[in-house]
Amino acid sequence: MTVGIPKGTRDFSPLEMAKRNYIFDTIRSVFRRYGFRQIETPSLENLSTLMGKYGEEGDKLLFKVLNSGDFAARLSDDELLARNSVKLTPKIAEKGLRYDLTVPFARYVVQHRDELTFPFKRYQIQPVWRADRPQKGRYREFYQCDADVVGSDSLLYEAELIEMIDEAFKAFKIPVVVKLNNRKILAGIAELVGEADRIVDITVAIDKMDKIGLDNVNAELLAKGISADAVAKLQPILLLEGSNAEKLMRLKEVLAPSETGMKGITELEEVLDYVRVAELKNSVELDLTLARGLNYYTGAILEVKAVGVDMGSISGGGRYDNLTGIFGLPGVSGVGFSFGADRIYDVLNQLELFPETLLSGVQLLFAAFDERALSYCLPLLRRVRRAGIAAEVYPTPAKMKKQMVYANANAVPFVAIVGDSEMDAGKVMLKNMITGEQRLMTIDDVVECLK
Amino acid sequence: MTVGIPKGTRDFSPLEMAKRNYIFDTIRSVFRRYGFRQIETPSLENLSTLMGKYGEEGDKLLFKVLNSGDFAARLSDDELLARNSVKLTPKIAEKGLRYDLTVPFARYVVQHRDELTFPFKRYQIQPVWRADRPQKGRYREFYQCDADVVGSDSLLYEAELIEMIDEAFKAFKIPVVVKLNNRKILAGIAELVGEADRIVDITVAIDKMDKIGLDNVNAELLAKGISADAVAKLQPILLLEGSNAEKLMRLKEVLAPSETGMKGITELEEVLDYVRVAELKNSVELDLTLARGLNYYTGAILEVKAVGVDMGSISGGGRYDNLTGIFGLPGVSGVGFSFGADRIYDVLNQLELFPETLLSGVQLLFAAFDERALSYCLPLLRRVRRAGIAAEVYPTPAKMKKQMVYANANAVPFVAIVGDSEMDAGKVMLKNMITGEQRLMTIDDVVECLK
Repeated sequence: MTVGIPKGTRDFSPLEMAKRNYIFDTIRSVFRRYGFRQIETPSLENLSTLMGKYGEEGDKLLFKVLNSGDFAARLSDDELLARNSVKLTPKIAEKGLRYDLTVPFARYVVQHRDELTFPFKRYQIQPVWRADRPQKGRYREFYQCDADVVGSDSLLYEAELIEMIDEAFKAFKIPVVVKLNNRKILAGIAELVGEADRIVDITVAIDKMDKIGLDNVNAELLAKGISADAVAKLQPILLLEGSNAEKLMRLKEVLAPSETGMKGITELEEVLDYVRVAELKNSVELDLTLARGLNYYTGAILEVKAVGVDMGSISGGGRYDNLTGIFGLPGVSGVGFSFGADRIYDVLNQLELFPETLLSGVQLLFAAFDERALSYCLPLLRRVRRAGIAAEVYPTPAKMKKQMVYANANAVPFVAIVGDSEMDAGKVMLKNMITGEQRLMTIDDVVECLK
Repeated sequence: MTVGIPKGTRDFSPLEMAKRNYIFDTIRSVFRRYGFRQIETPSLENLSTLMGKYGEEGDKLLFKVLNSGDFAARLSDDELLARNSVKLTPKIAEKGLRYDLTVPFARYVVQHRDELTFPFKRYQIQPVWRADRPQKGRYREFYQCDADVVGSDSLLYEAELIEMIDEAFKAFKIPVVVKLNNRKILAGIAELVGEADRIVDITVAIDKMDKIGLDNVNAELLAKGISADAVAKLQPILLLEGSNAEKLMRLKEVLAPSETGMKGITELEEVLDYVRVAELKNSVELDLTLARGLNYYTGAILEVKAVGVDMGSISGGGRYDNLTGIFGLPGVSGVGFSFGADRIYDVLNQLELFPETLLSGVQLLFAAFDERALSYCLPLLRRVRRAGIAAEVYPTPAKMKKQMVYANANAVPFVAIVGDSEMDAGKVMLKNMITGEQRLMTIDDVVECLK
């Protein structure tokens, strides 16, 4: 018999769980400190809530759940024999697994708007599902850790998100660069060059400057059908260099004719002003190539890259002005950020940054030589547990070697060995499993020692 | 536009999440203290893993996930036009949402057996899904909190489960009775009366003693086709009363002819011996009517009832000897227990036992009178957060009343009000939102006060 799990899904062992919980706990503690409140939404949403929110490709990647009961009964011959999976789906599946936390959150805000006080700051740490082709680092079930504020357009929240990012990665000891952009600046650039719908081509070109150089970038822009005039206007932007202040100074000159562009610069400056005095550990860098989720973000765009690790962005977010509009509640501005827990896991593993102390759950194992010793251990075990120390007893007086194998397999740091001499002394032999050192001790001393 | 969620599913607000986390954290802390290690398994399992494990009814209640891509393409005309949903399902759905945590755990143990050291003690707190008809207290998505030990038949673990139950409900301050039975005793009774396959009828009859009395129970047993001879032999069991010791003494006489029955009694006595010295807060009661999951359990059967609350069992579990056998790994005995988080939630609500302190996440809100005051607040806010205190600032200098409404809506206990006079003094006005009391304080004093 073969047993297995669906491709792209994972089992998590106790050790992996300890590492994952370290990540979630760290992020959660930052979210809480900044006043975000946890909510949860159902794994299953109505497909009417999810479809059309992630583009055509996203619709395909939604996991759809077959209706309960006799789902085939009411289908017509024509519907069946057409074998059109796309058309058949809405007739046999009304629910789907959530694809991200953002759309369910927008649905939540609209559905519960009368119970909420705005600005509403929520965080959410839950799995999402995507029927993507599984590959290294990409899974069909994975956790997202999102914090969003809705109902305020204050740029203070952009700054707070950056501070939160800084605190979380400081806690992880992962050096990062926070990349910052603004959708309005990109819109201004597009306006400037008269190619409002070519923002993506332009940002892709800017992104290639490092690799292929100015001449090749210009050639590529022309080849893509952008006018020579527009390319000429783009030159100062392509050549943008230096500190954030230097970049902004140059951008102000170039974007002066665009009201939207100038608004973007003002917003960006205000956010940078806020964080300048926050004594961040990590640097914040204006990056015009940042265009993630372009259709979605309307102001700030944020992304985090780990320094010295060959990996894409490990977290990201931004400002959106009309997320709840898709559910009939316009005019609710929001800004949010998502920590990529799986990516952070990989970076922590790669840089060997997981704390040593994570590995052990149980602090003490009682190992008895015989049945009488086992009985002797039980009240001592209770005493230790009631002191709040995680402890257990090997359930039979098995060979000592076997009990030690068990202790090591479970990374238990201390073993209390009990045989005749320990019982005669009313004590236990406490063995340090790392140093091998042994000491005859009373159970009270063991509790003191482990606390 | 109407927004909503699938029936039987729930959104959880910040307050509900705080209450739920209190339950999960309490249970998790007990699990950990007793040496259980956390694992997680995927929400989606192959339907081949799940089907046939929960009976015919269970198969129907599984949520099945439609295959990605063109699922209808390879279906024949006959398959389609038969409109047989049951036969069609395996051809268009290979995956399903897990129905409980036990079968996925059995699959996990078999799949990872070479990496595990036995006995393997795991806990798992994850949602499960059932396409049940939703009703009060019954949901289509709900959490289970399971602890199981596999790879040992030591009865010490039964005793530890009872101690864990006691500790958890002691922490919740919910008075409970732990009901205990043993499948082998039930088998012995059936053997005794010569009706091995009538255990369920017999336990149902025993269960009715309180309500309808001996005569009616006997009449019902006869009506169900149980022989007069068998009913006569059942009389001492129906009339079983008194303490656990008294019940066991009587059972020993009655079950003397049944080896299996006597084995059950010995096991039960051993478990009771273990817990007798554990100074439990709650009582453990032998209950012969306990027959939950009969096909599944082979030894101890456990159930928890809240005292003074009109509700079924709020948690349960037992010993199973062949759970991994269904996946080709026989001979792995296990014993486990599941806390019913939703039921516990309802009891805590009903008895008003949730701790008051849960309600608040943020300890301090800064409320500024104008832009200058807002700027004054920002470094103070950072100072407070860096001291580990959850705090936030109202993002605009809105009317003070609006800021107070926000504080109250979010159950923030303290507000630091800042206007000209506070800034002149280099202080803040700390308002206690419960007593209404106000005091002019330095930020260092505020930190001291809130820590």
